[in-house]
Amino acid sequence: MIAEKMKPYLKNNSAIRMMFEEGKRLAAQYGPENVYDFSLGNPNVPAPAKLKDAIVDILNEVDPVVVHGYMSNAGFPEVRKAIADNLNARYGTAFTENNLIMTVGAGSALNVCLKTLVNPGEEVIVFAPYFLEYGAYVRNYDGVLVEVAPDTETFQLNLADFKEKLSEKTKAVIINNPHNPTGVVYNEETIRALAEILKEKQEAYGHAIYLLSDEPYRELAFDGATVPFVTKYYDNTMVVYSYSKSLSLPGERIGYVVIPDEVEDSADTIAAATIANRISGCVNAPSLIQLAVARCVDAEVDLGYYDRNRRTLYEGLTKLGFTCVKPEGAFYLWLKSPEEDERQFVEKAKKYNILMVPGRSFACPGYVRLAYCVSYEKIVKALPEFAKLAKEYA
Amino acid sequence: MIAEKMKPYLKNNSAIRMMFEEGKRLAAQYGPENVYDFSLGNPNVPAPAKLKDAIVDILNEVDPVVVHGYMSNAGFPEVRKAIADNLNARYGTAFTENNLIMTVGAGSALNVCLKTLVNPGEEVIVFAPYFLEYGAYVRNYDGVLVEVAPDTETFQLNLADFKEKLSEKTKAVIINNPHNPTGVVYNEETIRALAEILKEKQEAYGHAIYLLSDEPYRELAFDGATVPFVTKYYDNTMVVYSYSKSLSLPGERIGYVVIPDEVEDSADTIAAATIANRISGCVNAPSLIQLAVARCVDAEVDLGYYDRNRRTLYEGLTKLGFTCVKPEGAFYLWLKSPEEDERQFVEKAKKYNILMVPGRSFACPGYVRLAYCVSYEKIVKALPEFAKLAKEYA
Repeated sequence: MIAEKMKPYLKNNSAIRMMFEEGKRLAAQYGPENVYDFSLGNPNVPAPAKLKDAIVDILNEVDPVVVHGYMSNAGFPEVRKAIADNLNARYGTAFTENNLIMTVGAGSALNVCLKTLVNPGEEVIVFAPYFLEYGAYVRNYDGVLVEVAPDTETFQLNLADFKEKLSEKTKAVIINNPHNPTGVVYNEETIRALAEILKEKQEAYGHAIYLLSDEPYRELAFDGATVPFVTKYYDNTMVVYSYSKSLSLPGERIGYVVIPDEVEDSADTIAAATIANRISGCVNAPSLIQLAVARCVDAEVDLGYYDRNRRTLYEGLTKLGFTCVKPEGAFYLWLKSPEEDERQFVEKAKKYNILMVPGRSFACPGYVRLAYCVSYEKIVKALPEFAKLAKEYA
Repeated sequence: MIAEKMKPYLKNNSAIRMMFEEGKRLAAQYGPENVYDFSLGNPNVPAPAKLKDAIVDILNEVDPVVVHGYMSNAGFPEVRKAIADNLNARYGTAFTENNLIMTVGAGSALNVCLKTLVNPGEEVIVFAPYFLEYGAYVRNYDGVLVEVAPDTETFQLNLADFKEKLSEKTKAVIINNPHNPTGVVYNEETIRALAEILKEKQEAYGHAIYLLSDEPYRELAFDGATVPFVTKYYDNTMVVYSYSKSLSLPGERIGYVVIPDEVEDSADTIAAATIANRISGCVNAPSLIQLAVARCVDAEVDLGYYDRNRRTLYEGLTKLGFTCVKPEGAFYLWLKSPEEDERQFVEKAKKYNILMVPGRSFACPGYVRLAYCVSYEKIVKALPEFAKLAKEYA
């Protein structure tokens, strides 16, 4: 007697999540040190010591009724102000606390945006490969997901196909930069070109098209790659952020959405998004961790840690003959399956206790994703196992 | 260009929340000590010292990658087990960790249940007066809210009207015990009678009708009142809980839902609810606070604190001539407005810096709600102001 809409999910549960459960099972069977689990974006870098100190200081200094109590549904004003000030300093923007809503992670922030904007039957465009949960989020509001085909040369935005797919029914477009699962970064030129198309189509169709930029990996960019702040290129942009990756807090569910004053009907949109945050049942982002991240706005990600992993894994796998997209951001490596059906490849890898996610879990068969947010030692120890796997395809 | 469904919310924003904002404004203007804000269920009792110790111990003892990392979408198994064991010890139930899903508070837990169960057009019954957000939660899934009329004699469940309102389209029924906003407690006899009607109607209609029991005030019962554990009386029951009130953690958004094995298709239902928790964007309940509440399952609410407030406010207001429902549970006092339109009464009270919530915010005009989860001193200091207010009606 469960709801009809939930039934397909039961049949087709998240492959990433099932892999996570399988990883735990294998770890129990063979010992965690002998399992090479590249399946989940659960950072292996511990949260910065500064965060722990911040939590303890808050518990010692601030009235617990405030620390653990209700606040405005958008979050503590001083937390939003600290984050707005930090964004302004880094990107030359002019946000105030009124432009930010603290949310239960980026997943919840995206749901807040979609609930605020999408009418049943309206289209939301995503670029394959993409985080498959976007589809569930869009269906939550009876929106229609429209996929742009991948550019399998570069895995950059396929703007030619995007232009085709944009229709009168398009209400929103989701991008993710730096990109999960491919590790690519969209540069300024790409964002400018995307914005031009959006402006043109807004004009042609006579209504707003919203760009939702999902940026939990914002600080994870390598080799000098820079991640453009999208509100500067296109007015109807909402930026979604999470501290899951930058502060290694995925379980804490803490993030925010930025809704600039330049967004159409911004006051109503911000008010509606704040209400959406409340009536979704979240009410507000968790309070203690809100206060803690505000004290860590300038904490830096240990980029060197991920960069060493990135280079080691990319070079190691390339040397073994695998074809990989060279990652510039996030902590994912996107690898072309040596056989057509990547599920077979993923299955073969399990013989060596290697866990990877099949590309079809990102609407892009023929590839696999490796999350290299694991320990360096794990990567070093995994490479000989990958060598055995490569031999099967020699 | 916001979604059509969101537009009514913009016009009709939560009165309780607006009052919260107004309370902050008045406090800034007159000083917080001179504002008598009885509008919001934000407990004034600080979280127990044990909770703070638990958080600090966890930060010192447990690997931060575990503390702040992803876990199963249902929550840490050991946390669910600790809570299940505690429930079993208290209520003679036989839950395992598989019967519990940790959620982002009770609001999120109710949304998880409704998303799991409700098809568009199906009916969900609530008993007036009720927490108006239930309506938003039901509309989130295109369900139809059906209100049972209040029993204005006792404010107990109006089972005669309930029987009338139960229809072939009824998918779920929400009760809240102890009750917000009236402070009444439904006793065993009442729950038995409710269960009998549900069983009869299930049989008559040939499909499951789910009882969702929202119990954030479970531990707040006075004068020896006991709160029945509803799963023992009716199989298709889901119990929704929050630590907001019992541990004074409303801002932390931590709660759970219990889905017993006795629920129809329980394995599928539990799996679907776990997925609903994920795809709502919450993913999982906040991790650190999950671990912390598991160490505080036997922490006791400072009942004496609320009881003194309850008696002082009830006796004080009754002596002034106001008609109140004597509260047996939660931390609310339900008062009959001395004039027909309770909004006028609420307005007059503001002259004395007294903030209360009009009954129509709970679908029950003619009454007001006072949340007495404030300091005792606030109540003592407020009574002379209430006396001035009473004089206006002499």
